[in-house]
Amino acid sequence: MKKIMIKDMENYVGETVKLGAWLANKRSSGKIAFLQLRDGSGFVQGVVVKEEVGEEIFQTAKGLTQETSMYIIGEVTKDDRSSFGYELQVKEIKVIQAAVDFPITPKEHGTEFLMDNRHLWLRSRKQHAVMKVRNEIIRATYEFFNNNGYVKADPPILTGSSPEGTSELFHTKYFDEDAYLSQSGQLYLEASAMALGKVFSFGPTFRAEKSKTRRHLIEFWMIEQEMAFCELEENLEIQEQYVAFIAQAVLKNCTLELERLGRDVSKLENIQAPFPRISYDDAIKLLHEKGFDDIVWGDDFGAPHETAIAESFDKPVFITHYPVGIKPFYMKPHPTRDDVVLCADLIAPEGYGEIIGGSERIWDYDLLKQRIQEHGLDESAYAWYLELRKQGSVPHSGFGLGLERTVAWLSGVEHIRETIPFPRLLNRLYP
Amino acid sequence: MKKIMIKDMENYVGETVKLGAWLANKRSSGKIAFLQLRDGSGFVQGVVVKEEVGEEIFQTAKGLTQETSMYIIGEVTKDDRSSFGYELQVKEIKVIQAAVDFPITPKEHGTEFLMDNRHLWLRSRKQHAVMKVRNEIIRATYEFFNNNGYVKADPPILTGSSPEGTSELFHTKYFDEDAYLSQSGQLYLEASAMALGKVFSFGPTFRAEKSKTRRHLIEFWMIEQEMAFCELEENLEIQEQYVAFIAQAVLKNCTLELERLGRDVSKLENIQAPFPRISYDDAIKLLHEKGFDDIVWGDDFGAPHETAIAESFDKPVFITHYPVGIKPFYMKPHPTRDDVVLCADLIAPEGYGEIIGGSERIWDYDLLKQRIQEHGLDESAYAWYLELRKQGSVPHSGFGLGLERTVAWLSGVEHIRETIPFPRLLNRLYP
Ligand SMILES: [Mg+2]
Ligand SMILES: [Mg+2]
Repeated sequence: MKKIMIKDMENYVGETVKLGAWLANKRSSGKIAFLQLRDGSGFVQGVVVKEEVGEEIFQTAKGLTQETSMYIIGEVTKDDRSSFGYELQVKEIKVIQAAVDFPITPKEHGTEFLMDNRHLWLRSRKQHAVMKVRNEIIRATYEFFNNNGYVKADPPILTGSSPEGTSELFHTKYFDEDAYLSQSGQLYLEASAMALGKVFSFGPTFRAEKSKTRRHLIEFWMIEQEMAFCELEENLEIQEQYVAFIAQAVLKNCTLELERLGRDVSKLENIQAPFPRISYDDAIKLLHEKGFDDIVWGDDFGAPHETAIAESFDKPVFITHYPVGIKPFYMKPHPTRDDVVLCADLIAPEGYGEIIGGSERIWDYDLLKQRIQEHGLDESAYAWYLELRKQGSVPHSGFGLGLERTVAWLSGVEHIRETIPFPRLLNRLYP
Repeated sequence: MKKIMIKDMENYVGETVKLGAWLANKRSSGKIAFLQLRDGSGFVQGVVVKEEVGEEIFQTAKGLTQETSMYIIGEVTKDDRSSFGYELQVKEIKVIQAAVDFPITPKEHGTEFLMDNRHLWLRSRKQHAVMKVRNEIIRATYEFFNNNGYVKADPPILTGSSPEGTSELFHTKYFDEDAYLSQSGQLYLEASAMALGKVFSFGPTFRAEKSKTRRHLIEFWMIEQEMAFCELEENLEIQEQYVAFIAQAVLKNCTLELERLGRDVSKLENIQAPFPRISYDDAIKLLHEKGFDDIVWGDDFGAPHETAIAESFDKPVFITHYPVGIKPFYMKPHPTRDDVVLCADLIAPEGYGEIIGGSERIWDYDLLKQRIQEHGLDESAYAWYLELRKQGSVPHSGFGLGLERTVAWLSGVEHIRETIPFPRLLNRLYP
C-alpha cells in the first residue's frame, strides 16, 4: 500500500492509502468518530465508522489523545464541505506513540507560555499556515532572482567591523581577534556585484537591540540585492517587481493557508507594480496635514508616521530622498541637493511598516573616503571597500528586504514573533 | 539603444547594443585591439578596428587599463572560434572610471596576497566560474526541495546550548545570558519536522576549530534536511537523489564554467543514483587490505582513510553503521547490534572527503534521556528536544550537506577557501 502525504490526496481518490499522521483534534459519538489529522503537509478529516472498522479500532480511535502519532490506513474520498476537499474513510489505525497531556489545547494560552512551548506551538493550524507562507516567500524569492540572472553571493556573518558603525552588535572572540555578527552583507555584496554583476543574498542578520516591539527580532533573515551599472530608479523598479512577484506567488500558492489565517486577499491582489513614490519632503508635509505637529524636516519616521503615510496609499509606497543626516555613510547624495540622498524605503500597507531600505551607493573614491572620516569609522577596516572605488568603480544600487516583516504583512499576523520558527527576542533564547 | 548583459548576447546577433563592462585583459597592434570584457554575467571579446572607430576611440581602447569600467557600444556578431560563441564589434567606448594598478595581474600571486585581495580576486575567471557553480548548486538545492514538498524552516543561529556538546563554539553575550553560534540546526529541524513533515534549512554554520586543512572553513554553509515518518534507508535514497540532482544541474547549466575550470566532466556524468553503500565494518576491512595497519575498529576515519575508501568506487559512497562511540548522542542504535548506529556519511570521489553526515534519530524518550545523561549534557537545555519524544514521537531521519565541500568537489578546485565569496579561516577575518 502506498504511503502518501495529505497534500497529495487529490491524486488518490477511491484508493486505499497509508498516512503517517498526528491527531490534531477529534470528536465522536457512539457510532462515529471524526479525527482531525495532520502530517505537516496539510490537515484532513478521518472518518471512523464503528460498524465498518469493528469495536477494537473504533475504541482506539475514540481513545486517541491530541498529538498522538500513528500510521493510519483508509480510502480517500471527495468532501465538498471542507475547503481541503478530501476526506479519509479510516480502515486501520496503528498508534506509534500516544501523546500525554499535550500542553497546547484549543483553549487560549498566554504568550509566554506559547513561546516557551514554541517547539510544540509550531504544530498549530495558524503557525503551520504562517510557516507555509514564509516558505512560499522564500521559494518565490529564489525563483525571482534566478529568473533574472542573479548570482547568490553569501556575505560573511563574522566580520571585523560593522557596516554602519552601530553599537548594537553581538561580539565574539575570533581566535585572537574581535569579531562581530553581521547586520548587513551589503558592503560585501557591493564587492561581489563588481565581480558577478547582479547578486543577492539571503541569510540571518543580528541586532542586539533592546527593543520589544511587534516589528523587531534580534535575529532575522534578510534578502539583499546589489547590481552594478544600476541607478536608483532602476533599482526601485526591481524592488516593486520583486515585492509584487512574492505577493502574487503567496496569493496563488497559499490559498488554503491565507483562508486559514483569515487574510483579506483583496489587499494582496492589489500588490502589483508600479508602486507609488513620495519624496521625504512631501511625506513630511503629508504628516503635517494629518496633524503630526511634532515631526520636523530632518527627523526620522517612527512606526506611527510610517503607518499614517501608508494609509494614504492602497499599495506599498516608496518614500524617497531622505535627509543625509539620518541615513548611512555610503548613500549617494542627490546630484543637485546636498541635503538629501538617493535612497528609498518601501513602506508596507496596513501598518506593517518599512520592509525595504535601499539606495544608490557612493562610487566616487574621494567622497566615500570623506564620508568614512566624517562618520568616524575605522579606515583600515574599510580599506578594501574604499578600494572598490579605485578599481573600476561604477554606479550601483541595492536594497535589503526584511523577511519576517514581509511574512507578517502578507500573512496578516500581528506580531513578528510568529513569523520565524524559533524567534530570538529580548531575553528569549529558548527553545 | 538597449543595455544588455553579456550572457544574453546570443539574442542580439546583428544588433547594436550597450554593455556596462570591465576590462579583464587586452592585446593590440597598430590597427586592431582585442578587449577581453566582463560584466559579471560572462566574458566576451570586443574587437576595436582603428579604421572603423577612428583615432580617438582607438587610442582610448589601447589605453584601457585592467579593470577599468566603461559603457561600450557595438554590434553583436557570431564567433565560432570562442567557446562563448559571440563577439562585440566595438563602435564607442565611454570610460566610467580608469582603474589604477589593479593588484591581481595574469602573473602568479601568493595565496596570502590573493586572500588579502579577495574583494578583487573574485573578478578573476576562475573565481567567477567557481561562484557560478556555487550559485547553481544553491539554485538546484531549492528546486529539489521545493519540488519534493519540503518547507524551509530556518533554525536559529544563536542558541543557549550546543547540539553535540562540543567545545569548538563561538560565544557571545545575549543581553544577560550566554549564547553560542549554531553548529547545526538539526535539533530544531526535528521539532519543525513534527510540525511540517518534511523540512530543510540552508544557512551559515560556525566551528571555532583550530584546523588549517584544505577542507575546513570556520564559517560555512550547510543544507540540512529532516523528515518525519522516515527511516535510514529512505533517507539515504533522498540523499543520493539530491546529490545526483545538483551534480546533473551543474553539468547542464555550467558548461562554460566547467570548461574554464578544466573540470573532467565525465566524472560528473557518472554521479547518478543509486550510490554504493559499504558498512563501517567492511570499510575497516577494506582499509586493512589497502595497507592501513594503524586503524582499528572503533576509530574515526581521517581524510586519507576517506580518500582510500572512495578510490574503490566510481561514485560517491555511503559508509553506514558507524560505532556508537564516535557518533553524536541522538543517533538511533542498530536494532540488533548495540555497538553501531543507524547512520551514514557520504564520501565524495577524488579525495574530496565527507560531504554528508546523516542518521535516523532516537525517537524513544527513555533512551534519548539516557543518552543525554551519558554524554553529560545539560538536561535543562535539551528539555524541549526531549519533550518531542513524549508528544507524538515518530521515526525520523535527516542529513546535513556541507555546501563548500560540495562546491569544491563539483568544480574541481583544490582548496575550500575558493568556494565561498569571503572565506573565514583560522586567523583570516579580512576582508
Ligand atoms: Mg526607517
Ligand atoms: Mg566523518
